[in-house]
Amino acid sequence: MKRTTYAGSVDESYLGKEVVLKGWVQKRRDLGNLIFIDLRDRKGIVQLVFSQEFNADALAVADTLRGEFVIEISGKVVARADGAINSDMKTGKIEVEVHEINVLNKSKTPPFYIQDNTNASDDLRLKYRYLDLRRPEMQRGLLIRNKITQAVHRYLDSNEFVDIETPYLTKSTPEGARDYLVPSRVYPGHFYALPQSPQLFKQLLMGAGFDRYYQIARCFRDEDLRGDRQPEFTQIDLEMSFMTAQEIQEMTEGLLKAVMKEAVDFELTTPIPRITWNEAMDRFGSDKPDIRFDMELHDMSAVVKGAGFKVFDSVLENDGQVKAIAVPGGAKAYSRKQIDAKQDYIKRFGAKGLAWVKVTADGLQGPIAKFFNDKADSITSAVKANVGDLILFVADKRQVVADALGYLRTSIAKEMDMIDKSAFAFIWVVDWPLFEYSEDFGRYIAAHHPFTMPNEEDLELLKTDPHKCHAQSYDIVLNGYELGGGSIRIHRRDIQEQMFTALDFTKEKAEEQFGWFMEALDYGFPPHGGLALGLDRFAMLLSGKDNIREVIAYPKNSKASEPLTNAPSFVSGKQLDELYLKPEIPADAKANKSEE
Amino acid sequence: MKRTTYAGSVDESYLGKEVVLKGWVQKRRDLGNLIFIDLRDRKGIVQLVFSQEFNADALAVADTLRGEFVIEISGKVVARADGAINSDMKTGKIEVEVHEINVLNKSKTPPFYIQDNTNASDDLRLKYRYLDLRRPEMQRGLLIRNKITQAVHRYLDSNEFVDIETPYLTKSTPEGARDYLVPSRVYPGHFYALPQSPQLFKQLLMGAGFDRYYQIARCFRDEDLRGDRQPEFTQIDLEMSFMTAQEIQEMTEGLLKAVMKEAVDFELTTPIPRITWNEAMDRFGSDKPDIRFDMELHDMSAVVKGAGFKVFDSVLENDGQVKAIAVPGGAKAYSRKQIDAKQDYIKRFGAKGLAWVKVTADGLQGPIAKFFNDKADSITSAVKANVGDLILFVADKRQVVADALGYLRTSIAKEMDMIDKSAFAFIWVVDWPLFEYSEDFGRYIAAHHPFTMPNEEDLELLKTDPHKCHAQSYDIVLNGYELGGGSIRIHRRDIQEQMFTALDFTKEKAEEQFGWFMEALDYGFPPHGGLALGLDRFAMLLSGKDNIREVIAYPKNSKASEPLTNAPSFVSGKQLDELYLKPEIPADAKANKSEE
Repeated sequence: MKRTTYAGSVDESYLGKEVVLKGWVQKRRDLGNLIFIDLRDRKGIVQLVFSQEFNADALAVADTLRGEFVIEISGKVVARADGAINSDMKTGKIEVEVHEINVLNKSKTPPFYIQDNTNASDDLRLKYRYLDLRRPEMQRGLLIRNKITQAVHRYLDSNEFVDIETPYLTKSTPEGARDYLVPSRVYPGHFYALPQSPQLFKQLLMGAGFDRYYQIARCFRDEDLRGDRQPEFTQIDLEMSFMTAQEIQEMTEGLLKAVMKEAVDFELTTPIPRITWNEAMDRFGSDKPDIRFDMELHDMSAVVKGAGFKVFDSVLENDGQVKAIAVPGGAKAYSRKQIDAKQDYIKRFGAKGLAWVKVTADGLQGPIAKFFNDKADSITSAVKANVGDLILFVADKRQVVADALGYLRTSIAKEMDMIDKSAFAFIWVVDWPLFEYSEDFGRYIAAHHPFTMPNEEDLELLKTDPHKCHAQSYDIVLNGYELGGGSIRIHRRDIQEQMFTALDFTKEKAEEQFGWFMEALDYGFPPHGGLALGLDRFAMLLSGKDNIREVIAYPKNSKASEPLTNAPSFVSGKQLDELYLKPEIPADAKANKSEE
Repeated sequence: MKRTTYAGSVDESYLGKEVVLKGWVQKRRDLGNLIFIDLRDRKGIVQLVFSQEFNADALAVADTLRGEFVIEISGKVVARADGAINSDMKTGKIEVEVHEINVLNKSKTPPFYIQDNTNASDDLRLKYRYLDLRRPEMQRGLLIRNKITQAVHRYLDSNEFVDIETPYLTKSTPEGARDYLVPSRVYPGHFYALPQSPQLFKQLLMGAGFDRYYQIARCFRDEDLRGDRQPEFTQIDLEMSFMTAQEIQEMTEGLLKAVMKEAVDFELTTPIPRITWNEAMDRFGSDKPDIRFDMELHDMSAVVKGAGFKVFDSVLENDGQVKAIAVPGGAKAYSRKQIDAKQDYIKRFGAKGLAWVKVTADGLQGPIAKFFNDKADSITSAVKANVGDLILFVADKRQVVADALGYLRTSIAKEMDMIDKSAFAFIWVVDWPLFEYSEDFGRYIAAHHPFTMPNEEDLELLKTDPHKCHAQSYDIVLNGYELGGGSIRIHRRDIQEQMFTALDFTKEKAEEQFGWFMEALDYGFPPHGGLALGLDRFAMLLSGKDNIREVIAYPKNSKASEPLTNAPSFVSGKQLDELYLKPEIPADAKANKSEE
């Protein structure tokens, strides 16, 4: 029997027709001389009816069916009785009278139900991923992901981009995150590394004159995992020659518009708003502002200065700042105890305290209200607060204020349900600092990566006071998530060398690690730039999920292992010998996995 | 300046227009008060003219230009003088009078010329790959490759296939080729493996109900390299549920038709011819027959039997066979000495000798002609030979005859220029043996892989005499190359267990290596099958190249290293410590790479 259509596609247009359908038994209802089967496939569910009247043999077979059996049937599409119509389903007005059925495979009872709401644990879902992926919401996520990639291919192809694959077995560059290594069998003691991104290879493609490159590329980072991280992840990777940052952003906007239309039928308005990194930190306390809601940060320094509240005055005298947000309706919504809990939380950002007042019809209230009651109007006006609002102040160094209030802004917006979950709010954050100070390394590191071009007007500064440079870089932010980022790259060797110097590379270290790349810059590299979008995160956001695992077919769990195949695993001594490797497992190392 | 078009796109339709172009200096001709520059970009070359008359400053700049400098210019498109027209070039009727020029980057003199004919060594080309890739023929290869992938995405998307990514960090399965391993930092002594193909993951996607899957997937094999092999390679990977082998082949033909049209504007006629593996071995002595020419193998056993030539008779008495090919015009083309050289060569296939006769107007000639002269007509008729032809006989066991004559057929066709190089000849080879005997392993191994479904009529044989089974498998062959292959897969646990038994797996070994997969088959797997096409080889054949390195942006060299970045390389002790690894390099190991 050759399938004529998908089960989930049979609607009134098939009335009276004979169809052949193939799929899984979702549910069976047995009324003795009548059996109903819900047949499921990728497109949805259709109701099958078995009866002596249509075919006695088929009825007998139907009686043996259990959940997840695989069957093929042929039958006639008929209208359901009036009382049996389900208008929520595409197939809800019809059913199929089955004339013939074959059981293609049987199934044991699955360890969890194949339905959207599941309470199976994460590891059980991963171990039986092939069953988990049968659940409609998991299928939806991967289908949205597919629509994103299809739109990407179409849009970029029509704009003369060339899809070029770069190597996965390449050289380890200890800068940045930790590499996954691959031992070489041919060269004892040597290792390939899996790429953290195709960055240098795509820049070389610009040097090679390809002009417009893209790739949907797997990237690898051996970092400690968090909710939104995986050992391997996928980026939509672009690079263009002879274009300005603004032109690259416009090209990207066209791409995003095409994707949003195709994947979720959303009409994205372009140009996408664009703010500088400085403005983002000032207004939202974040370099990835969620602009689906307001509650912006306001500088209160001028208003609160000299009012007699020593904490504020002392911060202001020491080059700090006082900023605040006004939480609409927050006066009622937050108790003193709840505010204290927030104060405790923001200590992790270095904040020493959280000052607050509530705005009432009778003026400001709260522990520090007395200092400011005669300035109540100036304060509420500066922070755009109304009666009933809660005003939260943080006074500290600029970064601490931004981190603390930025956190409060988003966490409170979630708590108070201020966010329109159906919205897709994109924003460009541009003109980033070229460097940032890393506490981990105890030195300045590249804010993006060491190949980022400083602003033209900062090229002299790069030689004299490099850490003040800003960069021709840009992030695209969606709903408060960093969706992607990019920059104009350095295409001249002299600037690249200055960059490494500013990063405290010795000449020898720069040569050893990136000599081959700097030599390339000697041979006529064009001005170029690009960006990369995180496909996993994009698919997650468009599917309305909160973990990228939900839109990856076979993700690792939170301990970087794959419960399905049980990778990673021990390998044979022969395999290790061929690679000249001997694992040395110290007694105090974590218990190995197989013993868990 | 914003580019208005590509240099290589400027033709008569731009006459009189002002253009902005960006690209590389290919060539400079200096006539003193007039300088001509050939400007190159991805689309081709256009001629720029600098003169005092158009702009004196620009002329002065032009005087400083050297090969591979990067420039941007604006200028006016004018017709060339009659004598200067080059009708072989798209831009050959025009030139651009330059009004303004900026030098965007300088270049050292490259180590080889940026032109199609190069005598640079392979390693030099790889070390300076970004320069090698500037050569037009290299750009062409990668652009054809891009057109293939674009056509693949479009065709499969329009046929409801879902692009799904499978993991690159997965579990080592020692069956088959050698795995690349990736040590785990989290689990001491444990390793991920890079996948040799997404085989099991794509089958699980069918189990998950995705119905139609595809992926352009990187695959990894740590094998000894040959001309046509790379440590990492790319396949166009397909899998479908509920379809027969024939239906899968038809779907693939649609895909190939779309690709051939898009990539090389070739109208592929479908259905593609289809022969069984047996027939391919009989007629062409090969499981990947090149059908761009005839010269088929003919069974001469009946004709030569009992003619008195003991070699033939003895082979025939021992269940062997005598087969021959007729080389058109070969009587003149091949001397006795040349034929002897061929005889020496085919000894590697196990052939003990090569018998031959030449067909002349006076009958057969040659050392064994005397035995067959009274059967000359039957012989020439059986092997379809004419006067002037050379008939080559091999008498031996079936496989030896096939290998020897299959080799002679193709090598002679090349030598005698019998092959239409512009042809693209596809053929399906179907119904393969399920197993083949491996001299390396000393046992039967799976001819395709252990997940291949036997023919329905051989299911009983699988239990009793498995090595006689044939499989529901198929290869697609292009111009004598295996372009891809696939099969219907086993979707039932009982058959999968029988398969492992036939492969001499103990129950324990099967469980240890594939238990997780066999458990999956317990839960309602649909009938399914698929195939994989080698993208590198496809791009190579459509570009008219003879090595896949020519259509890979950054390939490894023949020793699995990458001269550009010098990967693989040593890594830091810290990196090794984190992975609990200690390389143990025996004194007699190959000299390590850095010391070479």
